[in-house]
Amino acid sequence: MGFPDAFAGIPTSGDKHVRVRRSRPRYRQKTFRREEESLRAELLLAQTALREKAGGPVILVVSGVDGAGKSETIATLYEWMDPRFLSTQAYSTPNDEERERPFMWRFWRALPPKGRIGIFSGSWYSIPIARRIARKLSRNALETQLEQINRFEEMLVNEGALVLKFWFHLTREGQKTRLKKLEKDPRTAWRVTRESWARTRTYDELLDVAGHVLRVTNTAAAPWTIVDGTDDNYRSLHVGRILLDALHHYLDDTPRPATSVAPPLVTSLDQRNVITALDMGQTLTDRKYELELAKWQGQLAELVRHKNFRKHSLVLAFEGMDAAGKGGAIRRVTAALDPRRFQIVPIAAPSDEERAQAYLWRFWRHVPRLGRATIFDRSWYGRVLVERIEGFCAEADWLRAYAEINDFEHELVQDGSVVLKFWLQIDKDEQLRRFKERESIEHKRFKITEEDWRNRKKWDIYQQAAVDMIDRTSTGHAPWIAVEANDKNFARVKILKTICQHLERALK
Amino acid sequence: MGFPDAFAGIPTSGDKHVRVRRSRPRYRQKTFRREEESLRAELLLAQTALREKAGGPVILVVSGVDGAGKSETIATLYEWMDPRFLSTQAYSTPNDEERERPFMWRFWRALPPKGRIGIFSGSWYSIPIARRIARKLSRNALETQLEQINRFEEMLVNEGALVLKFWFHLTREGQKTRLKKLEKDPRTAWRVTRESWARTRTYDELLDVAGHVLRVTNTAAAPWTIVDGTDDNYRSLHVGRILLDALHHYLDDTPRPATSVAPPLVTSLDQRNVITALDMGQTLTDRKYELELAKWQGQLAELVRHKNFRKHSLVLAFEGMDAAGKGGAIRRVTAALDPRRFQIVPIAAPSDEERAQAYLWRFWRHVPRLGRATIFDRSWYGRVLVERIEGFCAEADWLRAYAEINDFEHELVQDGSVVLKFWLQIDKDEQLRRFKERESIEHKRFKITEEDWRNRKKWDIYQQAAVDMIDRTSTGHAPWIAVEANDKNFARVKILKTICQHLERALK
Repeated sequence: MGFPDAFAGIPTSGDKHVRVRRSRPRYRQKTFRREEESLRAELLLAQTALREKAGGPVILVVSGVDGAGKSETIATLYEWMDPRFLSTQAYSTPNDEERERPFMWRFWRALPPKGRIGIFSGSWYSIPIARRIARKLSRNALETQLEQINRFEEMLVNEGALVLKFWFHLTREGQKTRLKKLEKDPRTAWRVTRESWARTRTYDELLDVAGHVLRVTNTAAAPWTIVDGTDDNYRSLHVGRILLDALHHYLDDTPRPATSVAPPLVTSLDQRNVITALDMGQTLTDRKYELELAKWQGQLAELVRHKNFRKHSLVLAFEGMDAAGKGGAIRRVTAALDPRRFQIVPIAAPSDEERAQAYLWRFWRHVPRLGRATIFDRSWYGRVLVERIEGFCAEADWLRAYAEINDFEHELVQDGSVVLKFWLQIDKDEQLRRFKERESIEHKRFKITEEDWRNRKKWDIYQQAAVDMIDRTSTGHAPWIAVEANDKNFARVKILKTICQHLERALK
Repeated sequence: MGFPDAFAGIPTSGDKHVRVRRSRPRYRQKTFRREEESLRAELLLAQTALREKAGGPVILVVSGVDGAGKSETIATLYEWMDPRFLSTQAYSTPNDEERERPFMWRFWRALPPKGRIGIFSGSWYSIPIARRIARKLSRNALETQLEQINRFEEMLVNEGALVLKFWFHLTREGQKTRLKKLEKDPRTAWRVTRESWARTRTYDELLDVAGHVLRVTNTAAAPWTIVDGTDDNYRSLHVGRILLDALHHYLDDTPRPATSVAPPLVTSLDQRNVITALDMGQTLTDRKYELELAKWQGQLAELVRHKNFRKHSLVLAFEGMDAAGKGGAIRRVTAALDPRRFQIVPIAAPSDEERAQAYLWRFWRHVPRLGRATIFDRSWYGRVLVERIEGFCAEADWLRAYAEINDFEHELVQDGSVVLKFWLQIDKDEQLRRFKERESIEHKRFKITEEDWRNRKKWDIYQQAAVDMIDRTSTGHAPWIAVEANDKNFARVKILKTICQHLERALK
């Protein structure tokens, strides 16, 4: 009994970069018990090692045709391992909170932390496959989604996760036999729904679409394993062994090969860049400021209460040298918003729950619902600013972050977010003046610390990092706005005006 | 302009235990600016001190009649303080994740962490008041809810929070004038909805119900302040001052008066208690075990798939001495459940996000939705076991925990949860045997640590704590089941059988 033709195109283990294992049912009851015994003990040991060595999270994607034994296999894994450190997510209709956020939010919120195993029964693959079968998704749109999935999984792996994907397979006849058998047994009859039978009628389409999806997403970082669903014992041992092998490989101490990094960043020859090109002399008189501030705050207040804003959201990121005026600018923005519908997220050191997740997790958790705003005071760009400069992450990590960040923002924009990033630029002299001023005013003194003075010594390096960041992440859908911030009046009005203009365009 | 009669019964500042401040609008524009300036600087300093001294969370409840300036005042607080450390929650129709959990879950999830200020615009008061006005809640049911609210707020304060409640008031005529004024201004017209006007028609009922609610919930721990909503300047300064005073009082270093503690626990004269009364000799042969296990697992599998279970949920807590067999028992339970619909929560040291919240927060966050189960391997009872014994919390803290825990479980049960707590009892000799066995089996060695040996030395103290715990928290709706666990077969079957019996009763 071989795999159907649609699955023939999947690269085999001959291809060095792609691991695909296939084999046929071999195990019978007599050997099964013995094999199970040792596998179980080893899996338990590996699971403990995962937790104690503080390995990354392990993510198992479980997909396949109805009746091929997905839930039985998950149940077996729970029996074999310590279920306290396993979690399983199923995805059906998204709930309100999920529906009003980008597609990937529901998966991000359920990612297991370091040391744990998360099983996704139904995953980011389910909806693209179902929609393509129903012809609600064009071939091209599917390709785009698969490309996004590949980048997402690669990012997880680069962030330290072990990602394994299993496709549980049955022949058309095998599936019918299996569903009938499940229906007959009162203990399993509930598993077979009308939808299960309905889906058997699109078996060929499923094979066609899934075959393609598996080929395109069978990457070195996150390979697929096809599991023959016919035989219960075989299936369990097969999945268990692959998981065990992968855990052993993952936990052994040989360093992971360095991710290939982007070519070195080139400094422009004439020192002309997005920051030096700014006209830093721009100012606004107090009288003009009051008028303009009222005008744009009024407009912003109207825009966020426009009925179309319910189909959008607003994500603002503020970055800049210390004392550039981020806090003050943010206050002028929030003055126009309803406190019940926005949230300011100040980014400092991550909590331990955040450290146990992929880098972007701590930002995903604050992604606003439709009709709401989140304002980040410092942001995910810390990765390519402070973390790059202070060496908190490897060069490969911050270099890949540019693309990961672009992907993240793209997901937000796809869902209707207006994403704007403000770089507040001040001169070095102006910073010194503000530091001194802060030290002299009692209720501002807390704002200035030793660290600010240390960072100031790295002025040029920060400027270069900011230029690289803006060059690589200012996109049409999520632009950077460099703000001339020597004059606070000018900066605040420019920021408000920019937000209004972008919001207005989005709401039309 | 005084307060209407319905508010006359509220105790005044003459009553030592209750702070209620009232005063009339005094401030005019000429003095307002000067007063505002200094108040603002002081609030900012107090807010910083709150963060840096790692004070507890500050919880502001904002309620009152429509148009009395609730949102304007919140906006002013955002202007005066650092908005990055403020958050505001509004509650309208609960979403589906909230609807499928106990009423208080939506508030628990939004509680601010230590050092932050959380504003609840609409709160745990809104629904009881609205339902009582609509006569959907009997007088008695309201009383019960208010009693629960008082206990909830007292718990927050005992856990270190500062809780302030503001009622924004207007006379009937004042309200109409104010709503008309808001409607006229295009910048505020959106605030006045059809519901605002509809609610003016039940002004008397509101005053009647709210007056009563305020009287009953105006506690020493969490006092109400009535704010006259007529004058914008007065209102803002009034609220700002009260907040500032409260913060100063809260942040000064004088120790809080010790909470009055319950009378000392009495040991029974004959040493007979719920644990010594157990018949520890009970066993089950392997053959009988296999049969019984299959029977009860089968029944449990059916019960959780019963359509009525969608209106219920299952919350199980497992406690017991080390090596009592909690993990093994849990696995026999979960074997009957669908991994997509249950979660096991192993309780170890809290994360830093959990430490920044009231004690029960880390358990509330795992409360299951309807139709699902959460199994706690160790639980909130750590407070009255390990924390009591190791001195991780003060005596007053673990003594009040008994009642807090009863309240918590009562909330779960009210919402349809079946809550069962299992104490797995083994003999001291049996523990020793199991410790040694674990040390000799490679894949079980990780389960035995130095700490287990240390805890063993405190055997008698743990037993006494367990007896006190069972005595004080075994309630009709959330019973403790003491399990004779020297024989694992016997224990596992007893647990499964008990769960089935309770579930069956609930589903009828």
